[in-house]
Amino acid sequence: MRLAILLSGRGSNFAAIHEAVDGGVLDAEIVCVISNRPNAPGIERARQWGHAAHVIDHRAFPSRAAHEEAVLRVLDDARPDFIALAGYMRLLSPDFVARFRNRIVNIHPSLLPSFPGVDAQAQALAYGVKVSGCTVHLVDENLDAGPILVQRTVDVHDADTADSLAARILHEEHIAYVEALVRLSRGGYRVEGRRVIFSG
Amino acid sequence: MRLAILLSGRGSNFAAIHEAVDGGVLDAEIVCVISNRPNAPGIERARQWGHAAHVIDHRAFPSRAAHEEAVLRVLDDARPDFIALAGYMRLLSPDFVARFRNRIVNIHPSLLPSFPGVDAQAQALAYGVKVSGCTVHLVDENLDAGPILVQRTVDVHDADTADSLAARILHEEHIAYVEALVRLSRGGYRVEGRRVIFSG
Repeated sequence: MRLAILLSGRGSNFAAIHEAVDGGVLDAEIVCVISNRPNAPGIERARQWGHAAHVIDHRAFPSRAAHEEAVLRVLDDARPDFIALAGYMRLLSPDFVARFRNRIVNIHPSLLPSFPGVDAQAQALAYGVKVSGCTVHLVDENLDAGPILVQRTVDVHDADTADSLAARILHEEHIAYVEALVRLSRGGYRVEGRRVIFSG
Repeated sequence: MRLAILLSGRGSNFAAIHEAVDGGVLDAEIVCVISNRPNAPGIERARQWGHAAHVIDHRAFPSRAAHEEAVLRVLDDARPDFIALAGYMRLLSPDFVARFRNRIVNIHPSLLPSFPGVDAQAQALAYGVKVSGCTVHLVDENLDAGPILVQRTVDVHDADTADSLAARILHEEHIAYVEALVRLSRGGYRVEGRRVIFSG
């Protein structure tokens, strides 16, 4: 499995994926890491770990489409089987998504379809759920809405703040993201309607 | 804790509550059981177990309001601290809800706010979630939307049908409903915004 990583920040999910590859848990090769932010800690880590690291600063391009074209050129060279979004803070165009149909993976810090969009952990806390978690899903044209690969749950505590809940969810994100990629790397899954069925 | 039960069908959650009371797990007295359907298996069970059982057939009343008035008369006599809905297939009016503010408890077979309304298990399956569950909540004016007391999770299996998923969720419902009532019976909780905080 050839894996591209797109990130904008610390890339803690990227780090979890890197460790899984490095430790032999995930049979994959990280063929490129792309950041749209020059100073993202995640891209510095990618360099330290010896991955092909590309900064493609969106502010250096005249349009969203031009920036995306530059990202696509790097991806065309790297030929990934899957693209893992790890805190990539740019919306992907429908054309981009169509080009990698069911091959872009993202993670969201709630049990979708509850609490899509920003500040999912704070949304969950304000709603008063007793259980939240994270969702690894394939990316489609709609925000936080593609077919679900893996979900993991986290109990919400009475004393939780958005930060303490986010920290506990993040721990599960790292496990969930690796689990989803391991399953995808083994092949033998199919998407029926919105359901992802793993046969392995 | 004086507890009224409202049901329309088999009343499996009522049976779980009865067993919890009978076995000393839940320190409560079931002061009345009301069914709007004469042939509900749940009301037959209530009689067998010696509870005050009332059939208040909605078809015998000229209006929704008149039926609800009859239910309220029974409740006024029984003086419950809490009303537990156990498959009660009638909408409660805003006036009824306001009269028992934060004292009516219901259960829903999904992790709310995901999949409110009918056929929650089939909705969850069609959406392709990997985790579903059940939610015990206080009833407010909106459908399946009141402050949440307890949630329990259930893994969704690739081979699940709506029926097999519903059966596994139902098992958790019985545990969750008793847990929520035990917590309420101990007092010491407060509702902050939408969050229910138990201090005990």
